[in-house]
Amino acid sequence: MEQLELTVKIAIDNWNATLTRTNGILRDISDEDMLCEVCPGRNTGIYLLGHLVAVHDKMLQLLGIGDQRYPHLMDIFVNSADKAGHIMPPVAELRAKWEEINGALAAGFNGMQPGDWFERHTAVSAEDFAKQPHRNKLNLLLSRAIHLGEHYGQLLFLKKKA
Amino acid sequence: MEQLELTVKIAIDNWNATLTRTNGILRDISDEDMLCEVCPGRNTGIYLLGHLVAVHDKMLQLLGIGDQRYPHLMDIFVNSADKAGHIMPPVAELRAKWEEINGALAAGFNGMQPGDWFERHTAVSAEDFAKQPHRNKLNLLLSRAIHLGEHYGQLLFLKKKA
Repeated sequence: MEQLELTVKIAIDNWNATLTRTNGILRDISDEDMLCEVCPGRNTGIYLLGHLVAVHDKMLQLLGIGDQRYPHLMDIFVNSADKAGHIMPPVAELRAKWEEINGALAAGFNGMQPGDWFERHTAVSAEDFAKQPHRNKLNLLLSRAIHLGEHYGQLLFLKKKA
Repeated sequence: MEQLELTVKIAIDNWNATLTRTNGILRDISDEDMLCEVCPGRNTGIYLLGHLVAVHDKMLQLLGIGDQRYPHLMDIFVNSADKAGHIMPPVAELRAKWEEINGALAAGFNGMQPGDWFERHTAVSAEDFAKQPHRNKLNLLLSRAIHLGEHYGQLLFLKKKA
């Protein structure tokens, strides 16, 4: 396998592994427990899930896979803090959107050629990209994988100890 | 810049960004507060710091940069759970080792050529690597960056709210 292809495989594999760990935890937390703070005084599980849905939804657009499907979630889960007074969708709805969005991302990844990952993501202008060629789609995938890991580490705390 | 070089730059940039966020948090947490659990019933800050030191120390060896410097930390912080009864080094000592090890990793990264990242890491045999060429040093760096992110997300909870 060629190094470029290998790189893309590695990045997607690490993304998928983090997603799989997160989904394992999400399955272990009841809808009711998702309403609790992951740690006293910190974000609730439902806020973190909504935050991840909104951020991954935005990735569809940033990677040029498609339109953002639920832009209204940005206001509730990205531009506002937890407990800012927004009415949140039910946990079950967020879980369904989470599956849907990650499925759309996976389908988009499948349709991309290795070289596509070295194109600019849509938040970077062509002029800026000429000067900063590292601001490509692969970079976005890596930084979002780490972002997912950060919140996975927090959601873990909602899992009841055996 | 060539795609291979770009890839390596992106991976190292994401590693450094996660490390910078983590160091910012570590600076904000007092040695005394590091002894507390990040969340009731969960790991302490000192355990997480020791865990990260041990895992990053092991990376020196896995990436072929040098020897593992503090292998005895593996027993306390990787092979044993927090509160397993091990005597831990003082927080100040772990902070110094953390800086030292991450400095040694950074120096090692500087000395590597882009192509070096596509070599097998030392935990993979040559035979296995022939069949699984994605098990290279770049892969190790990405997965450890996500690992760091997971624990960064948890250490955040020890930071006092303004």
